[in-house]
Amino acid sequence: MKHLSEITNRLIGQPMFALLAKIKEMERTGEKIIHFEIGDPDFDSPDSVVQAVKNSLDNKETHYTNSMGLWDLRQEICSFTEKSLGFKPSVEQVLVIPANAIIDFVIRCVVNPGEEVIIPDPGFPTYRAVLNYTGIKAKPVPMNPNDIRKAITDKTRLIIINSPNNPTGLMLTKEEIAEVVAIAKENDIYLLSDEVYSRITYDKVHYSPSIYDQCKERTIILNSFSKIYSMSGWRLGYAIGPEPVIKKMGLLLETIISCFPPFIQRAGITALKYDVNERNKELRRRRDILINGLNSIGIKCLKPDGAFYAFAKTDLTQDEILERAHVAVLDGKYFGEQGKGYIRLCYASASIDEIKKAINQIKTIL
Amino acid sequence: MKHLSEITNRLIGQPMFALLAKIKEMERTGEKIIHFEIGDPDFDSPDSVVQAVKNSLDNKETHYTNSMGLWDLRQEICSFTEKSLGFKPSVEQVLVIPANAIIDFVIRCVVNPGEEVIIPDPGFPTYRAVLNYTGIKAKPVPMNPNDIRKAITDKTRLIIINSPNNPTGLMLTKEEIAEVVAIAKENDIYLLSDEVYSRITYDKVHYSPSIYDQCKERTIILNSFSKIYSMSGWRLGYAIGPEPVIKKMGLLLETIISCFPPFIQRAGITALKYDVNERNKELRRRRDILINGLNSIGIKCLKPDGAFYAFAKTDLTQDEILERAHVAVLDGKYFGEQGKGYIRLCYASASIDEIKKAINQIKTIL
Repeated sequence: MKHLSEITNRLIGQPMFALLAKIKEMERTGEKIIHFEIGDPDFDSPDSVVQAVKNSLDNKETHYTNSMGLWDLRQEICSFTEKSLGFKPSVEQVLVIPANAIIDFVIRCVVNPGEEVIIPDPGFPTYRAVLNYTGIKAKPVPMNPNDIRKAITDKTRLIIINSPNNPTGLMLTKEEIAEVVAIAKENDIYLLSDEVYSRITYDKVHYSPSIYDQCKERTIILNSFSKIYSMSGWRLGYAIGPEPVIKKMGLLLETIISCFPPFIQRAGITALKYDVNERNKELRRRRDILINGLNSIGIKCLKPDGAFYAFAKTDLTQDEILERAHVAVLDGKYFGEQGKGYIRLCYASASIDEIKKAINQIKTIL
Repeated sequence: MKHLSEITNRLIGQPMFALLAKIKEMERTGEKIIHFEIGDPDFDSPDSVVQAVKNSLDNKETHYTNSMGLWDLRQEICSFTEKSLGFKPSVEQVLVIPANAIIDFVIRCVVNPGEEVIIPDPGFPTYRAVLNYTGIKAKPVPMNPNDIRKAITDKTRLIIINSPNNPTGLMLTKEEIAEVVAIAKENDIYLLSDEVYSRITYDKVHYSPSIYDQCKERTIILNSFSKIYSMSGWRLGYAIGPEPVIKKMGLLLETIISCFPPFIQRAGITALKYDVNERNKELRRRRDILINGLNSIGIKCLKPDGAFYAFAKTDLTQDEILERAHVAVLDGKYFGEQGKGYIRLCYASASIDEIKKAINQIKTIL
């Protein structure tokens, strides 16, 4: 008899998407909502990047391409990595792939059902969503070496870190990164470093665990064009890792989606040359106004070191804030146990005027 | 200790991709190769479709969008289905997704490891590749009701059919389709109808099993923009199926890749309006010249009813034909046991002049 498979009982998707439907419905009825709910900058994708797609389409780059990614883009990623991290991976260590899929593919390629993965709590919900449906045990812990060490068992196969962290904006120090690398090495397990926000930092320097093994032994870098270049709809990202892992991830990509659109990959080459300084300055301005504003009305909030989220302690829920203040935020609970009692506000998706207005509107419901 | 997961031992990707590397290498050293190896038409993607992407980019449709697909495209797919198949699915029955991923997602959403799926032999290699890595048993049989019926066991959860078939070009008759539908109904199992080539037919009419249940009970349609519109690099396809299945597939898509690029989806709306008659006429001319040519030099080959492949009986292997005749074809073995002793030639990727030249070159090595 027909049935849905066992994994479908464990599919949770990205639960905040339900909130989006509610917001859309309110807007449809004429309500004006200020948006802080999704990690999607309100900047446009760079003009040069859009032009690169158009050129690629005019050059008829519309056919199947190498499953691993365009050679030219992978080489550009290698050079970019040399400039930003100080080592140059081989082209064979690079796979072009939507960043979200890296989480799914890395987990499925290095962990078996019944084994364990350590993830940050609070942390990006997709880590948990993938572990959930694949039948692999998530060990959510606060992102620091002590808690990570305590969570290690003989079933641990992978540690995931995310610095700067979504949702807290917290960054691991050089010493903490070294310590996490040591833990992974002692236990001979893989380390997935989600570096989506590595170039959106304010006062501190980003450190990557990849500098210790140049992604040859155990470190896999996850990177994305979505946040830094405001290209969320393009689904363009890349993984850098040990060749045997990258090769298997490439086979999985070949099996599931054959290859990634070549004209979007051309846009990636152009994006890597785009100067993000002005965008980061604007994000810093928004951060300062939002954090000061929240603290001024009694909602405690630390200044994030990187990324573009305020993680604020409050008894207010997203539903109360949405319905009564017309401000869309996310409940911290989506990010794990440690996120309960917090809300996350993305300040990349609201202008400075909107941020000021939102603070006033939240103040009225306190 | 770190290891690659069990699924990685069973990942075979699309094995013909290795041949592509060999061909590229020969071309790099100056050899001139005539291409029949990949199912990728040499037509350009339609100008109107390219223009639609450019317009969408200019309209800044570059951000995250609904995981299930743009509402506008899904509605257009519903109307298109009404015109082509005579019933109008609900928007909730439609998911926008790369066509290759439909195979992976349908299988993973309705079959558990240890259960069985009936697939066509010879047939498209991804069916087998997905079943292989997921630990689900493939039951490959010649694509006809009798053989399908004999392959049913109490573990069968899904039948996959593909009419017109890749690689044979064979089409199921109205009676055969009705019989397959009856088998699926009697056994209360799902039926995946891969209709990628449904609009590339020459003399016969395409019948879809979906007309019996309007994709509400057990039929899932797989369709793609790659072949009919020559948009292979765009990775755009869609599934139509029972809402509970489509909903779970959407959650899987949301978990793995979040959403599909909105500007490519806009191109899809335009593509559905594109008139494919001229392209199909050219394909028919190529078919006739290739089939007659092969038969004239003693390589037996039936005239395909649809799709754009010649499946020819010969003792020659792809390596002999590539190395000695400089013509790139695929060994039939990639398509299953029943494909052994055959080669597949895609006549969508070579011009009429090239087809004539290739026949002459193959003749010299016989």
